[in-house]
Amino acid sequence: MNNNPIGVFDSGIGGLTVVKEIIKVLPNESIIYLGDTERVPYGTKDRETITKFALELTRFLLKKSVKFLVVACNTISATCLEEIEKISPVPVLGVIKPAAVLAAALTKNNKVGVLATRATVSSGAYTRELRKIKSSIEVFTQACPLFVPIIEEGLLDHPIAKIAVDEYLKHGFEGDCDTLILGCTHYPLIEDIIQKTVGSKIKLIDSAKPTARELKRLLTEKKLLDDGKAEYEILLTDTPPIMQKTIDMFFENKTPAKLKKVYL
Amino acid sequence: MNNNPIGVFDSGIGGLTVVKEIIKVLPNESIIYLGDTERVPYGTKDRETITKFALELTRFLLKKSVKFLVVACNTISATCLEEIEKISPVPVLGVIKPAAVLAAALTKNNKVGVLATRATVSSGAYTRELRKIKSSIEVFTQACPLFVPIIEEGLLDHPIAKIAVDEYLKHGFEGDCDTLILGCTHYPLIEDIIQKTVGSKIKLIDSAKPTARELKRLLTEKKLLDDGKAEYEILLTDTPPIMQKTIDMFFENKTPAKLKKVYL
Repeated sequence: MNNNPIGVFDSGIGGLTVVKEIIKVLPNESIIYLGDTERVPYGTKDRETITKFALELTRFLLKKSVKFLVVACNTISATCLEEIEKISPVPVLGVIKPAAVLAAALTKNNKVGVLATRATVSSGAYTRELRKIKSSIEVFTQACPLFVPIIEEGLLDHPIAKIAVDEYLKHGFEGDCDTLILGCTHYPLIEDIIQKTVGSKIKLIDSAKPTARELKRLLTEKKLLDDGKAEYEILLTDTPPIMQKTIDMFFENKTPAKLKKVYL
Repeated sequence: MNNNPIGVFDSGIGGLTVVKEIIKVLPNESIIYLGDTERVPYGTKDRETITKFALELTRFLLKKSVKFLVVACNTISATCLEEIEKISPVPVLGVIKPAAVLAAALTKNNKVGVLATRATVSSGAYTRELRKIKSSIEVFTQACPLFVPIIEEGLLDHPIAKIAVDEYLKHGFEGDCDTLILGCTHYPLIEDIIQKTVGSKIKLIDSAKPTARELKRLLTEKKLLDDGKAEYEILLTDTPPIMQKTIDMFFENKTPAKLKKVYL
């Protein structure tokens, strides 16, 4: 047993889709969420910048005595998970591997698509991870840089979301795949639009769910489960007025904690 | 005469529309441009964060012995121009005042619209500046947070740009105005779409042109003009692979300098 909190971090607020899943499968676990809204988005930035920022977030959470670190951001997981592991005395779980394991298990035609930020796509992390599990898998990737701003603006039901989905899927690459990874923690919020566009035969994979399940397995294995009452903190490096509204949208108005501004 | 460079800075690369105009009206002036691409966008962030970042940019350029500072960013100009002036030993020019002066001179029905980032709109800076010039002016503002990511993605001719314009102008507020300020240095890149949408009777004002003219007037008045050969530097805090392409689009493939990554 270990009643210290789990540290979950992301470049912004997308990682809250992972928090939501963790709360579902691990209702006794306390969580400190740290989102770098001051410097979001990371997915359009270069490797050096992303790594520098990610290590600052890691150090901040380690000072809070977290027992486990969840990198709830595909861009960070794809870019510098090893660097984070190097400086962390506690176990670290990224979102890429759990999503890749699930996709590899589900694909029948061995063709997997990945929608992600530009940084995640150019890192090649999903391709490497999928091929490690099953070397015969063909991987098709597509960067979708407008999805994050559209989602952060809350335009989930607006025609602009559908047009952006059409734009990024117009090459029809996903038609060959039977499995499509939503390789950014924001994308589950427009999952319905993506599903309608690609058709119901393609299985969509949201990294939040397999990551939460893998976290539960690891906490159990390492005897780190919490038996107390869960407490939640949502810490952000920038809190413009619209933020609460956007986060309430993530949690369907059941946001588990008040937002708090912090300084790294 | 003073042959030191002019320092021009912005949260990202939008301020290059101002640099382009400065080169046109002041071809002998050397320019150091600093864009905080590592932390762009500012327009969605809070006042405290924007001020902190802007002062870091100011100090960086002051160390480069600039003779004049141009704040080529509406968000920064709207949020913390006074704080910048307080720490700067050299003159400072923002983009809000020159655009407001021009708008006040051009409006005949005393109704001026402003399209800008959320931070610029909520600062109220354009309204204050316009009313200072002519207290009877009515000001209508609209935040357009998706314009910057769409433009930075280079989707200028894509249907998504038109849909975003329609979205932000759907309330028809601009119909009453005869003058509409493009209150973000990115927006001139979709000026044609905005003009078509609002109709040819509404005069659009791009802050880059009046700012460049005001800079010329001030340099002349303060006897700070350069008589040498102009040299240009484009310094960015983050240089992902796509950046050069986007900047070449800003300069219609006549980018005056190679991009250089710098650390604040």
